[in-house]
Amino acid sequence: MKLKFLSIALAIIFVGSIFQTQAQSVIKDDFKPSILNQPGQEYPQVNSQGYARFRVKASQADSIRVSLGLGGQGGTLLTKGADGFFTGTTAGPMDEGFHYYHLTIDGGVFNDPGALNYYGSVRWESGIEIPAHDQDFYALKDVPHGNVQQILFPSKSTNTSRRAFVYTPPGYGKDSKRYPVLYLQHGWGEDETAWSNQGRANLIMDNMIAEGKVKPFIIVMTYGMTNEVRFGGMRDFKIEGFQTVLIDELIPYLDANFRTLTDRNNRAMAGLSMGGMETHTITLNKPDVFAYYALLSGGTYNAEELKGKSQPKLIFLSAGSKERPDGVRNAATALKAAGYNAVSYVSENTAHEFLTWRRSLCELAPLLFK
Amino acid sequence: MKLKFLSIALAIIFVGSIFQTQAQSVIKDDFKPSILNQPGQEYPQVNSQGYARFRVKASQADSIRVSLGLGGQGGTLLTKGADGFFTGTTAGPMDEGFHYYHLTIDGGVFNDPGALNYYGSVRWESGIEIPAHDQDFYALKDVPHGNVQQILFPSKSTNTSRRAFVYTPPGYGKDSKRYPVLYLQHGWGEDETAWSNQGRANLIMDNMIAEGKVKPFIIVMTYGMTNEVRFGGMRDFKIEGFQTVLIDELIPYLDANFRTLTDRNNRAMAGLSMGGMETHTITLNKPDVFAYYALLSGGTYNAEELKGKSQPKLIFLSAGSKERPDGVRNAATALKAAGYNAVSYVSENTAHEFLTWRRSLCELAPLLFK
Repeated sequence: MKLKFLSIALAIIFVGSIFQTQAQSVIKDDFKPSILNQPGQEYPQVNSQGYARFRVKASQADSIRVSLGLGGQGGTLLTKGADGFFTGTTAGPMDEGFHYYHLTIDGGVFNDPGALNYYGSVRWESGIEIPAHDQDFYALKDVPHGNVQQILFPSKSTNTSRRAFVYTPPGYGKDSKRYPVLYLQHGWGEDETAWSNQGRANLIMDNMIAEGKVKPFIIVMTYGMTNEVRFGGMRDFKIEGFQTVLIDELIPYLDANFRTLTDRNNRAMAGLSMGGMETHTITLNKPDVFAYYALLSGGTYNAEELKGKSQPKLIFLSAGSKERPDGVRNAATALKAAGYNAVSYVSENTAHEFLTWRRSLCELAPLLFK
Repeated sequence: MKLKFLSIALAIIFVGSIFQTQAQSVIKDDFKPSILNQPGQEYPQVNSQGYARFRVKASQADSIRVSLGLGGQGGTLLTKGADGFFTGTTAGPMDEGFHYYHLTIDGGVFNDPGALNYYGSVRWESGIEIPAHDQDFYALKDVPHGNVQQILFPSKSTNTSRRAFVYTPPGYGKDSKRYPVLYLQHGWGEDETAWSNQGRANLIMDNMIAEGKVKPFIIVMTYGMTNEVRFGGMRDFKIEGFQTVLIDELIPYLDANFRTLTDRNNRAMAGLSMGGMETHTITLNKPDVFAYYALLSGGTYNAEELKGKSQPKLIFLSAGSKERPDGVRNAATALKAAGYNAVSYVSENTAHEFLTWRRSLCELAPLLFK
């Protein structure tokens, strides 16, 4: 059973293209620095159609390829100019939202010195943001902001202090009010920084709380593996290590140190991709711990495996339209027919990437803790 | 006056060498991965003498130079092997502690894909750690840990939400106890991430609190500039922008949203390098806001400029022994003669780098809020 979902999660990673299928013939000359550039850096740039333009100095290099774009060999080959800068533009517009990328310089993999770094693919990668038509929901606005706290919690099972990030909503701690908690997992190759850095989970929550769309809750994000971090490790992945950290160590620490509501009906678990696989397995193993389950591009549930366990109050299944959207739609339909409160959501024109998951969080949050 | 301290701060940046003066002839073969490597990365490595060894793949590159080491042209030139990897070892042992570095690959500046990144020199640089003989005081230990909270506070003067990090000590928020606050500034080219990432300020505090050496307090770290971030901007640096953010926006936000003690005697300001220059100027401009002043490799005070203002409860001046240690020693002696509670501290065998400042924080913290 576990292996089945592992296969699904792994398959999804490689499904879909992050590029729009129709390249537009006239490239508009309205390029601006990506909002994820390092301070003062002019490149990479993005135009209003979603093309990305790169410019990297390496005057004695022979070849620089960017791992994004429609170029035949899996990227955009840059062209060296007389000024020692390599420049190039993706052959077509890219999907809206956040993309990881890197440079291959003369046979080695490096980051773009112009861009900020984000942890994905088991390394800190460069990041670029193609402004989305609905970017307002994850924008930094002049609204009350919650905090993202780095905590170091004791873990006897792994014999170390482990790190988690805890989003607390605006006003948290000013009175004795207690809050429900969403445990929110990253995908394979990412870590506990992903949901707040590339996911902007805190800004999404701040904006929805300001609009009165969600009941304020706490979000907890921690690293979802205890074994080898490399890709080979995924094949041997066993849930027990992380399940022990989450259930026996992190949740008790949260409940002892934060103003949480500690009953099942005030606890949700969600995850993207591999984090969805983990959510699936752990919620079924521990049906009395969580009442809300959400898999974001991370597989589905079926009625049979839920039978005889504490009833979930919500099953949320999502995917990008460029992944396998019928899988989550059909699963939700079948679960509803079997009497479960199941909801599916498909993010339009996105693949296995963070805009799918930002939007999924935005759809999920109002459904939690009702 | 302001210009004088600017000159001092700028001069200090270029004083001192981060390398031990005597290269040892026999290099011990006990190299281990730096503790600041990215997950699973074997290189860079450090041996017990303080030599660093680098290994970077770029099979078609012509030249890779590391910006650390005793090599003639300001770094360590790596040698290309038949396997496509460039390798090399510093010509001598390096100073203990944290060092920023980067690679120059065929004329371009990039980061080492093996190392974690730290914001310094107005860019995310690679970082390496040479284990210090006294590293225990900043180690991650099995003690109660405080949290580091990212806050986004409203700033009317700069018309945006600005970021700060707030260290709260273990147990903070569990009861109604209120805490003193240290406002702690980074140096030029760094930002609000520096003191917790490369400075390990939270771990230093956790360890000292566990040992009963300090009275628990809150530390607030925010970005110390409001103008252009590039080096040219330093020449035109004016304190007013940041002073307004700190005094009129951040402090009131902290006092409204955290359990702070809000009187002068429970507020300290400290900063390293440029942050020391800022501390010097702002404490003199606003003598009723802070009662504890600390300049870490960031200049000195003299009795004349303090005359007629609210008396500081402590003036702490520090530097690395490879900087200008006599400057802080002499200034403290003169201040004591004039009746001030002044303390100087010199970090042995360190230059204008973070081990100097980690140690300085460790010396300063027990003297605060007595």
